[in-house]
Amino acid sequence: MVNSLASQTRPAAAPAPADVFDWLDEAAALRADAGLTRTLRSRAAEDPVLDLAGNDYLGLTRHPVVTRAAGEAALRWGGGATGSRLVTGTTALHTELEEELAEFCGVEAALVFSSGYTANLAALTALTDPDTLIVSDAYNHASLIDGCRLARADVHRAPHSDPAAVAEVLAGRAQRRALVVTDSVFSVDGDAAPLRGLSEAVRAHGAALLVDDAHGLGVLGPGGRGALAAAGLAGQPDTVATVTLSKSLGSQGGAVLGPRRVIQHLTETARTFIFDTGLAPAAAGAALAALRLLRAEPERAERAREVARSLAARLTAAGLRACEPDAAVVSVRAPGPEAAVAWAADCRRAGLAVGCFRPPSVPDGVSRLRLTARGDLTDAQIADAVRIIAELAPAGARG
Amino acid sequence: MVNSLASQTRPAAAPAPADVFDWLDEAAALRADAGLTRTLRSRAAEDPVLDLAGNDYLGLTRHPVVTRAAGEAALRWGGGATGSRLVTGTTALHTELEEELAEFCGVEAALVFSSGYTANLAALTALTDPDTLIVSDAYNHASLIDGCRLARADVHRAPHSDPAAVAEVLAGRAQRRALVVTDSVFSVDGDAAPLRGLSEAVRAHGAALLVDDAHGLGVLGPGGRGALAAAGLAGQPDTVATVTLSKSLGSQGGAVLGPRRVIQHLTETARTFIFDTGLAPAAAGAALAALRLLRAEPERAERAREVARSLAARLTAAGLRACEPDAAVVSVRAPGPEAAVAWAADCRRAGLAVGCFRPPSVPDGVSRLRLTARGDLTDAQIADAVRIIAELAPAGARG
Repeated sequence: MVNSLASQTRPAAAPAPADVFDWLDEAAALRADAGLTRTLRSRAAEDPVLDLAGNDYLGLTRHPVVTRAAGEAALRWGGGATGSRLVTGTTALHTELEEELAEFCGVEAALVFSSGYTANLAALTALTDPDTLIVSDAYNHASLIDGCRLARADVHRAPHSDPAAVAEVLAGRAQRRALVVTDSVFSVDGDAAPLRGLSEAVRAHGAALLVDDAHGLGVLGPGGRGALAAAGLAGQPDTVATVTLSKSLGSQGGAVLGPRRVIQHLTETARTFIFDTGLAPAAAGAALAALRLLRAEPERAERAREVARSLAARLTAAGLRACEPDAAVVSVRAPGPEAAVAWAADCRRAGLAVGCFRPPSVPDGVSRLRLTARGDLTDAQIADAVRIIAELAPAGARG
Repeated sequence: MVNSLASQTRPAAAPAPADVFDWLDEAAALRADAGLTRTLRSRAAEDPVLDLAGNDYLGLTRHPVVTRAAGEAALRWGGGATGSRLVTGTTALHTELEEELAEFCGVEAALVFSSGYTANLAALTALTDPDTLIVSDAYNHASLIDGCRLARADVHRAPHSDPAAVAEVLAGRAQRRALVVTDSVFSVDGDAAPLRGLSEAVRAHGAALLVDDAHGLGVLGPGGRGALAAAGLAGQPDTVATVTLSKSLGSQGGAVLGPRRVIQHLTETARTFIFDTGLAPAAAGAALAALRLLRAEPERAERAREVARSLAARLTAAGLRACEPDAAVVSVRAPGPEAAVAWAADCRRAGLAVGCFRPPSVPDGVSRLRLTARGDLTDAQIADAVRIIAELAPAGARG
């Protein structure tokens, strides 16, 4: 059917080499008409702007202990890992990082990947098979959605943060196995998933639970041990977490955390682990240093949450529609995508970088500013940020 | 159909949480029975072993200029990029790397990713649509295969390195667009793809060509400018390349290289670009330093090819079945997976690390040793390596 339609539209003459990618320009024109053009902005090393746009939740990315550790790891181990983890790409530093991450998060074992994206692809593909139903929250991150697409399992998209709906789908399934997958903290609005309710649903129906704790590690739970620790679910035999090393831990990479047999299975079968070069030693070293800082200074996690509450309360007091933050993300609704872009650009000109989320990066189609409540912000910086955002708010932002 | 079969096998009682992952142990037992268990081996920083197992083709990973550049980038820019490339994750260093990579490879523009895996997923998903036929070489790398699975296009698996077969499929297609995708140098046997023949097939039928040059950059073409430069195809308007920063460039990450409109399209639409944290500054800095070294010392590329020819010739002279190398990969056939594993382990005990490829990492089911012809190997090291491999060859290796 698709083929016969396609054959009707296929031009008789083959396009010339110079015209083969003309359709990309047509797509760009459509994006421009919809106000959805995106451009890369390159930043300088000494940027005076106040950054509430990145995901450096604890302000550790530029901590001298972290950057020195990155440099020392490169000098000692080399600029790259030289090969896939199963060939030459596992250094003693990778192993050390995996052991300390697992211990910190209260799980049996951890496996480090070159990014959180590839960690999520690994978990979803390796922990499912054709006789598995994946139940995926409607607001899950793109990397989880792509993992569902790559997996050879059936996929059901469940309503956002609704354990009862998940339980119903699990109860009615025909597949032998099921895996419920959710972000712990959703990246756009910063709302927390109902992990205890999801775990109960999973247990009632013999399923497993996969939680992407990218925005929870370092922020939620005792000393920043993450959303599963906060929910009393760390180390459960039916629960697996993925985390990123690129947010609270100020580096790059991702990891899967869980029972030892799950980690062994991923080591032996996950394609994005087996066929990817290992994480660069500098990134492993930086993440390990950040993890040790967090362990030594557990108040960093609580401070990030406190900054988030303060930001949200003051923005709400200024009449703006800020979400109640469950972690360190604060979102503020904008009247539309173009207004959101203009608002963010105005903030930047005033010295404040904020994130700007709009379709297709928002699951509900609502454009927003997105603020990161970095734990190293001072009260004066918080007050400045709120003043700038409120002063520059477009018409309709308070509606 | 699948569902009704599945419902017959679904156990009546839900498994207990501790039993949910029992099936992973069953899978592990099957792998063990087939001799396919894989284990991570952690290496020390000062490992006296002679490494012919990694992909450090030019021996630049531990070059002091490269490792110093990694450390300086971390100190200057931080341990991580702090966010996705479109939000805060693009530093001036990323832009510099992209501009120099594009200029070196003779293309209009480049876009850097956190890994070669995510670069391939990006190219395949963003440059195709439901009215596209992807024609993919049967021996392509796992990341290309996963990219085909993720893309919303039809996929045809073409016989290995067969431009005539590709032309036939393109001629008979119903889809408006087509993308032919191939490795430039296949990772297992190190054989080169017939790029000129593929380009002719593509041009005869209005298709585009995507070439994964992971094993070609730094080794093939004038001064290591890659397989497309070697074939006279660099900078063509219908041709896109992906490369890795983790092999010849001694770092981590990947890149897509091509016409400016292709790069702009990926920037705005590729999910593994938009939704992934940017490459760590240390990795960008290391890759840029390695690229500048290669540019200043173009003989490094020729030397890697010369080492490969020498290794293969001496192994063949010793009666072993080594492939004729087209780049810097030399493969040697083993009688079976267990013999291959034992052979590699024996070599390691004798002080030589070699790769061991076996199912499912080999497309033809043949187990092999895989040697990397590092351009910094001395003639004495080459002689040592050949002596060890030949002395320890299992029965049947010369068959």
